[in-house]
Amino acid sequence: MLYEGKAKQLFLTEDSAVVRVKYKDSATAFNNQKRATLEGKGEMNNRISTFFFELLNKKGIANHFIKAISPLEQLVKRVEIIPIEVVVRNIAAGTMAKRLGIAEGTKLKHTIVEFYYKDDALGDPLITEEHISVLELATPEQVAQLREQALRVNEVLSAFLLELNIILVDFKLEFGVDGDGNVLLADEISPDTCRFWDKETGERLDKDRFRRDMGQVVEAYHEIWNRLGGK
Amino acid sequence: MLYEGKAKQLFLTEDSAVVRVKYKDSATAFNNQKRATLEGKGEMNNRISTFFFELLNKKGIANHFIKAISPLEQLVKRVEIIPIEVVVRNIAAGTMAKRLGIAEGTKLKHTIVEFYYKDDALGDPLITEEHISVLELATPEQVAQLREQALRVNEVLSAFLLELNIILVDFKLEFGVDGDGNVLLADEISPDTCRFWDKETGERLDKDRFRRDMGQVVEAYHEIWNRLGGK
Repeated sequence: MLYEGKAKQLFLTEDSAVVRVKYKDSATAFNNQKRATLEGKGEMNNRISTFFFELLNKKGIANHFIKAISPLEQLVKRVEIIPIEVVVRNIAAGTMAKRLGIAEGTKLKHTIVEFYYKDDALGDPLITEEHISVLELATPEQVAQLREQALRVNEVLSAFLLELNIILVDFKLEFGVDGDGNVLLADEISPDTCRFWDKETGERLDKDRFRRDMGQVVEAYHEIWNRLGGK
Repeated sequence: MLYEGKAKQLFLTEDSAVVRVKYKDSATAFNNQKRATLEGKGEMNNRISTFFFELLNKKGIANHFIKAISPLEQLVKRVEIIPIEVVVRNIAAGTMAKRLGIAEGTKLKHTIVEFYYKDDALGDPLITEEHISVLELATPEQVAQLREQALRVNEVLSAFLLELNIILVDFKLEFGVDGDGNVLLADEISPDTCRFWDKETGERLDKDRFRRDMGQVVEAYHEIWNRLGGK
């Protein structure tokens, strides 16, 4: 095993440029202070992530995904993760709504991109491009690429999901650098990392059900998977 | 009285474009959770602020200051304060050092400008230019001016203070818009709003003495005033 995160394990393969990702059933929130095991979540996130990465590949947005190899596993290109969480927000929700005193559900005047320093010990603080520069987390050119790619992902996913009556409220992306120095979308795209609201009812179909003790967590993940056409 | 803040009172004058500022002896920290009265602080801040505003005026950096009229009072141009605290940092200290896990006293690779949403109820959160835009706190042109003017203030004050063996670690500025729509440096520039470290000893000569219960608070403000040539 190469690395164990909160929601996934990474394993080396015979090909040094390829990593095997295994999705776990563990759920965590609030910087690991809240934890649970949710049976079936790992499989849903593997399937949903696979779907979105394939969709993005078709739309010309390069990412680390190679192929799914089992209900819980996929093969991805090995990258070195840039320690920046890139968050795209279309509607105010969660910590951002609270921090800025905006009512949750308020449509933002325009989509925004935020950067967070990926550091559990510090609680993943919000950072600006100037902090990224002094901390040397990424070059200005890489930051421009993160922003541009994140906005393109937002365009593709927002439009696609709206057809399925799902509003893409916000989401978190991670990127890595491959052996050739290319910035590549990595990590996962799932109800763990996105806020999905039903367009008609406003029902939460994402990890907020776990964060806020709303119940029916895995059922909501299944609902997303069903709308994506999952068997 | 027009307005009472934590450290100053503002009064209307016969001239609707002019406001009388009276500095108070009250000290507050940590978003008003820590409070005290420090006799003599108001006079020191009025004198030190007067000194810096006059220096900046001489250096061509426009600001709201008109003239001091008593040990505790000055006249300033009336502006509408932009609800953004502009922080310039040369060296990591205080909340920024803690948030980003940088040792206090570390010289930053380059000077940075941060924006905070001036809102006590929210605890003055760090914001990005995109937050400023969606909250409509200032126009992009105004934000560019805030940044540019803040960096010019830093250049003038850092160089001037270094001659007095004082290191300007960081400082907070506030700006306002006057009746003609000009962005004008406002508020105060004092040991309440700057971190001043003695160049030889590293001794804190600012409000950190109050925040951190180091004692000799007003004495440190007097030391700054003395080095500025105060009687």
